[in-house]
Amino acid sequence: MGEDAASPAKAPLEGIRVLDLTRVLSGPFCSMMLGDMGAEVIKIEPPKGDPVREQGAMPNGFSWYFAAFNRNKKSIVLDLYSEAGKDVLARLIQDADVMVDNFRPGVLARMGFDEARLKELNPRLVTANINGFGSTGPYVDRPAFDFIAQAMSGLMSVNGAEGEDPMRTAQPITDLVAGLYCAFGIVSALRARDLNGEGQHVESAMVNGAISMMAYLASEFLATGNLPERTGNNHPLVAPYGLFKTSDGEIAVAPSNDTILKRFLDAVGVGHLMEDPRYDNNEKRFARRNELQVLLDEEISKEAQAVWIDRLNKAGVPCGRVLNLAETFSDPQVQAQKMVIDVDQPGYGPIRMLGFPVKLNRTPCEVRQPPPELGADTQAILQQSGFSSEEITALQQDGVVTLGKRRISLGTNE
Amino acid sequence: MGEDAASPAKAPLEGIRVLDLTRVLSGPFCSMMLGDMGAEVIKIEPPKGDPVREQGAMPNGFSWYFAAFNRNKKSIVLDLYSEAGKDVLARLIQDADVMVDNFRPGVLARMGFDEARLKELNPRLVTANINGFGSTGPYVDRPAFDFIAQAMSGLMSVNGAEGEDPMRTAQPITDLVAGLYCAFGIVSALRARDLNGEGQHVESAMVNGAISMMAYLASEFLATGNLPERTGNNHPLVAPYGLFKTSDGEIAVAPSNDTILKRFLDAVGVGHLMEDPRYDNNEKRFARRNELQVLLDEEISKEAQAVWIDRLNKAGVPCGRVLNLAETFSDPQVQAQKMVIDVDQPGYGPIRMLGFPVKLNRTPCEVRQPPPELGADTQAILQQSGFSSEEITALQQDGVVTLGKRRISLGTNE
Repeated sequence: MGEDAASPAKAPLEGIRVLDLTRVLSGPFCSMMLGDMGAEVIKIEPPKGDPVREQGAMPNGFSWYFAAFNRNKKSIVLDLYSEAGKDVLARLIQDADVMVDNFRPGVLARMGFDEARLKELNPRLVTANINGFGSTGPYVDRPAFDFIAQAMSGLMSVNGAEGEDPMRTAQPITDLVAGLYCAFGIVSALRARDLNGEGQHVESAMVNGAISMMAYLASEFLATGNLPERTGNNHPLVAPYGLFKTSDGEIAVAPSNDTILKRFLDAVGVGHLMEDPRYDNNEKRFARRNELQVLLDEEISKEAQAVWIDRLNKAGVPCGRVLNLAETFSDPQVQAQKMVIDVDQPGYGPIRMLGFPVKLNRTPCEVRQPPPELGADTQAILQQSGFSSEEITALQQDGVVTLGKRRISLGTNE
Repeated sequence: MGEDAASPAKAPLEGIRVLDLTRVLSGPFCSMMLGDMGAEVIKIEPPKGDPVREQGAMPNGFSWYFAAFNRNKKSIVLDLYSEAGKDVLARLIQDADVMVDNFRPGVLARMGFDEARLKELNPRLVTANINGFGSTGPYVDRPAFDFIAQAMSGLMSVNGAEGEDPMRTAQPITDLVAGLYCAFGIVSALRARDLNGEGQHVESAMVNGAISMMAYLASEFLATGNLPERTGNNHPLVAPYGLFKTSDGEIAVAPSNDTILKRFLDAVGVGHLMEDPRYDNNEKRFARRNELQVLLDEEISKEAQAVWIDRLNKAGVPCGRVLNLAETFSDPQVQAQKMVIDVDQPGYGPIRMLGFPVKLNRTPCEVRQPPPELGADTQAILQQSGFSSEEITALQQDGVVTLGKRRISLGTNE
């Protein structure tokens, strides 16, 4: 192509180098999103590696759980318990744009990297910490875990069946939401740096993120003082709503307002109920929800799931099946959205993982590199950062860094 | 102050104007986060306003649910069904940086604003759409709702008690996660615009966002083909773990690995169990989880919740109470983190709402303006955008725009 050809658009975080000190889940999820957006993410691992490397199923010897949270990253192994390791980190910080950790608040400072030192090393550095409860307040030193954050955020208190105990959600939602908020905060802080010339500190906490997901459950409680009740799959305020029985399984139907409810009842052939004095407003319908359920199930059970899903959606009524993961991942819509992708991991064959939840049409997220083997990039990163061959050898001999094996390109997806 | 005084740092999105066509939940949450980060968010409402204005409890006449999702926004009323209204939008687009909607895919184009037209009006515009299923694939025209997105993403299939049916989570998690992804995508696209000079289209879908929250549940299924089971508050793989009975209520304990489990058992006074041949690895413990639960409950029930929470946290074991919303919001930690704030709404008194889940230390999120009354800023925005008084009067007389009343400043929080 000639020189006139348009150069390819740069990814949103092209040219941004992220030092990633995070482990396990919330932090690696955050830094992976930065990598998906084009940042160079350098995962700094202890000599034994992120513990997730040894967790979960490992077809062909590589953890798919680790892979799912570590695509688009490089790996270097650095012993941060040693003074020499800390010196290496200090040098890397000088060339970095972002450093993110998910240690408890204060741990990084105790390792010798407090705010003043970081600012001295690199005033443009954006630092970020994902933690359990926040860095101020009485619980600042408590260890955190998703289950506890779910319990303490009020999240569990509203989940569960009517008359039953509070129940957690199975997804580690507080980890992931905190990670997502942190990624949003980091990109925002990078933009503030573009405007102001200086970095700053970003923080997100699992409990705070979970609280922010309470939506109208929170606003109604704050406005009225009434605690929300657990209602399982039923809507706490609207009826009919929930799961209905077809001839070959259930369907979920969400008629969230009177307009949509009318479409639903019309489609079921019982539109007259909207005029029936027993059911002509939501309050009455809610009081007689069980009666309505029987009535609707009787009609709906006359035809099959697929018929109802097609008919109701065409009528503008939100409706679908409760899918298990096998069904979700083989759903034609989920496939059209490329929400499951195959990543070639040289030496280990293809690894299947989730796709990209944010779609940008001009600079789409893509897998630029597979999840790294432990320490695969130690040598290259240190060389780029100006360490001489002699220095690298000495660091290696002292056990401060580990040079991982280079990836072998198979050239095929076996 | 002299001219040498440092000017205050600019907020991350200072100078960014967002046209916000969204309604109800996912979109207003997204645009509120942009406003929290300093963007000027112009909420463009139909003559009757965002339906949420009439929903939920309304102490002193203002919906706290609406307030919770619409701080840091201005409001203009514009009838987009009229040609004149569309012309007004076209003029506003020329001065905007971002336009976000949560219509179904294609609706905006059918209103006359397809990709080509938008690019012609403003090639630097970042456009964004939050939808249910994505803008390609067979379900593109289906109506969406959180309950249906939970059902179809596999999310419900893993939630719920052992042996019981799939259960939704009470929070409208698919709305909020999609909104959060979209905000992350928009700020990323703004940064790409800084690099490339052009805007682009950002999209996030409720089902895709929900799928991305499946974490190791997804990777384990993809690696093994085994569907995850519902296990309620128990961990699917690790025991002991979950809720334990103290003398005055339950505590949630999450000993997620052997090191933490040892600390837990030591603190309970049964550290020897780790050596007991019946319990000396996770597989055995998992098989005898009920037996262990009885054994641990017996010890733990000898003392009170507060004692255990203090003791276990000090020992490094993640532990806490299951709090309801009243307890969460009055928790000293949540208060230290300012996760509930009072916003003075002139004319209506203070409104209590959730605080900011992302903390930036140099340019913190803040409430720059309370949630707007309907159309409060129509006149000011139109004037700023170059509409003459005559034009504004004509638009008003034709019912294309509505000039809301100005806010009355009470000057006190009653």
